[in-house]
Amino acid sequence: MGNTVKKLAVLGSTGSIGQQTLDVVRSLPHRFQILGLAAGTNTDLLARQISEFKPGFVYHRDKGTPAGLPGTGYEFLSLEDIACHPQVDTVVIATSGKAGLKAVLAAVRAGKDIALANKESLVIAGKIIIEEAGKSNARILPVDSEHSAIWQCLRGETQPAARIILTASGGPFRSYSPEAMEEITVEQALNHPSWQMGKKVTIDSATLMNKGLEVIEARWLFDMPFENISVVIHPQSIIHSMVEFADGSVKAQLSHPDMRLPIQYALSYPERLPNPQLRKLDWSNIKSLTFEQPDFDNFPCLKLAVEAGKKGGTYPAVLSAADEIAVELFLSRRIKFTDIAGLVEKTLAEHEVVSPPALEEIMAADAWAREKVKQLVREGSR
Amino acid sequence: MGNTVKKLAVLGSTGSIGQQTLDVVRSLPHRFQILGLAAGTNTDLLARQISEFKPGFVYHRDKGTPAGLPGTGYEFLSLEDIACHPQVDTVVIATSGKAGLKAVLAAVRAGKDIALANKESLVIAGKIIIEEAGKSNARILPVDSEHSAIWQCLRGETQPAARIILTASGGPFRSYSPEAMEEITVEQALNHPSWQMGKKVTIDSATLMNKGLEVIEARWLFDMPFENISVVIHPQSIIHSMVEFADGSVKAQLSHPDMRLPIQYALSYPERLPNPQLRKLDWSNIKSLTFEQPDFDNFPCLKLAVEAGKKGGTYPAVLSAADEIAVELFLSRRIKFTDIAGLVEKTLAEHEVVSPPALEEIMAADAWAREKVKQLVREGSR
Repeated sequence: MGNTVKKLAVLGSTGSIGQQTLDVVRSLPHRFQILGLAAGTNTDLLARQISEFKPGFVYHRDKGTPAGLPGTGYEFLSLEDIACHPQVDTVVIATSGKAGLKAVLAAVRAGKDIALANKESLVIAGKIIIEEAGKSNARILPVDSEHSAIWQCLRGETQPAARIILTASGGPFRSYSPEAMEEITVEQALNHPSWQMGKKVTIDSATLMNKGLEVIEARWLFDMPFENISVVIHPQSIIHSMVEFADGSVKAQLSHPDMRLPIQYALSYPERLPNPQLRKLDWSNIKSLTFEQPDFDNFPCLKLAVEAGKKGGTYPAVLSAADEIAVELFLSRRIKFTDIAGLVEKTLAEHEVVSPPALEEIMAADAWAREKVKQLVREGSR
Repeated sequence: MGNTVKKLAVLGSTGSIGQQTLDVVRSLPHRFQILGLAAGTNTDLLARQISEFKPGFVYHRDKGTPAGLPGTGYEFLSLEDIACHPQVDTVVIATSGKAGLKAVLAAVRAGKDIALANKESLVIAGKIIIEEAGKSNARILPVDSEHSAIWQCLRGETQPAARIILTASGGPFRSYSPEAMEEITVEQALNHPSWQMGKKVTIDSATLMNKGLEVIEARWLFDMPFENISVVIHPQSIIHSMVEFADGSVKAQLSHPDMRLPIQYALSYPERLPNPQLRKLDWSNIKSLTFEQPDFDNFPCLKLAVEAGKKGGTYPAVLSAADEIAVELFLSRRIKFTDIAGLVEKTLAEHEVVSPPALEEIMAADAWAREKVKQLVREGSR
């Protein structure tokens, strides 16, 4: 490896993970070069990113050159064409929702290294992605802090894990009463105690749906039965997850909650690079790391997700799509925080599963679930 | 590797680590076979171990067949001859004090795998042992829970650690006032809150001398400058140590405090073997892991050890020998608990260092220090 420069494409460059990815590249310009940038809507920020990183290829949701983007110096390509471009070494999938799935599949089929921050693709199509990666030797490098922790703990181990212990901050409503849960506002839900993240994942963290999606991701990334994946609440977000081995020994990965570390690890792997931007743990300031069991009554989304994962087929796609719409409705103040779980549960209950599904059947289940949630809300059902 | 049976010699089989090593072998009889046993004084227990494990070679401090040992079925050999016997795969050095050093060197020169529980050999002759191991390709496999943790965390990493964080339970006197430290009895000092260990190491844990010796061990085992080794007090003894990497990421190894796990890991490495005797961590029962900075005023032995390690030469040998005698004097109620540090400090202050020392010079420094401590006590100096 040595000091070669790795060429990156960042899909979703204007989102939270995308911006933090560019921050890592900014800190380590001698190691990483941006070859492709892709964004959906934030044209102003994309324009500034193009000026700073001078990518060779750009995707923007609007075809052609939208107003505000530099007119020359790069080529417009589709998401898929950027994801499998022969000059790109590592594709960072930082898009949210199912927008990333086609690009993930294109990168997988091209045998790329894929730094995967998009949860939905593995949740809804994990089986397909992992099978395709097995054929092409593409590597799925996790960017989620929890999965990066597990991946780091598994490094160099020659036997599979006996158990994965995903940690969860518990979000801002960890100690709320059931009555208080009913009154949660959008502002409260967007105020996460330990992580800076995009809106969708912040709400998912507050409902624990995020942790449920991560359980499904872990099942695919590490070929781990659901029975051997545990969730433990760890409010300080210092231990990012743990792995138990056959002999009962446990390894944990720790750091300040800063997404730039797992992003950088996925980009630099197998190397670890010093980065002065990444603050180190100071053991004279860490007094206590605490642990609690998740409260499944106040946070039914966690159980819904794990059950959908266990049932498999198109259920995880329905879970993910129903949650995406329910979160949007909550953010636009059309439903209550506690309605999110109810809507997801009702949608799952009415779904006619296809198992195992082809990609088209996953997409159809996704579309059905989105409509179903909207219909339930129109009918006044929560 | 597969399911081959590893042939072991256990030097110090009647001590705490020796007995726990045999307990691991008892749990995994299809993977380990006892070829050699060696003990100093506990003839009754050695006799029972010979009957149970039927070793080919035995060492006992008394030459010939001491009363009480089975008369036939095995051969008497010297410690060194057992340590380098061609049929032995792994030599477990579980003797305490400098008794293990010659056997360690014999095993190292024979290129053996050495499961090393004896702290003193690396403390007093680390440079010689590591250099010899480099020539013979002998592997030093740590058995101390802290060094095993570090070794497990380094597994598969391709770059050296940036920092080692040794955890310490803090012992039974962690929150004592300076006045209360003066009144500590032998019984209190032998009552360690989390670990079952031999007497010498239990007292060393109570003074934190043990942690200081472990810092010196870590320096040699992991080629780590003293400046990059930290000690943090962690009273629950669940996190056994941590490693910080170049990118700021930290890995930790966790388990119940049970020496059989690091012993088994050293024996089975690189495999990890299920052992129903090893209790697994239950995250529904672990509420809090806490951390404190060491109190160097109440526990001067930690600082004395690190300083002796940094100065090098024969200083660590003097530290170790002076401590061994001071602990004996405390256990026989001739000096106070707080006198241990004072005697070690005075002995170090009067030592004329040799650097770098040959083995004979290390032995001479050791003998001088033992006499010096006794002389100081005779003269009424503490």
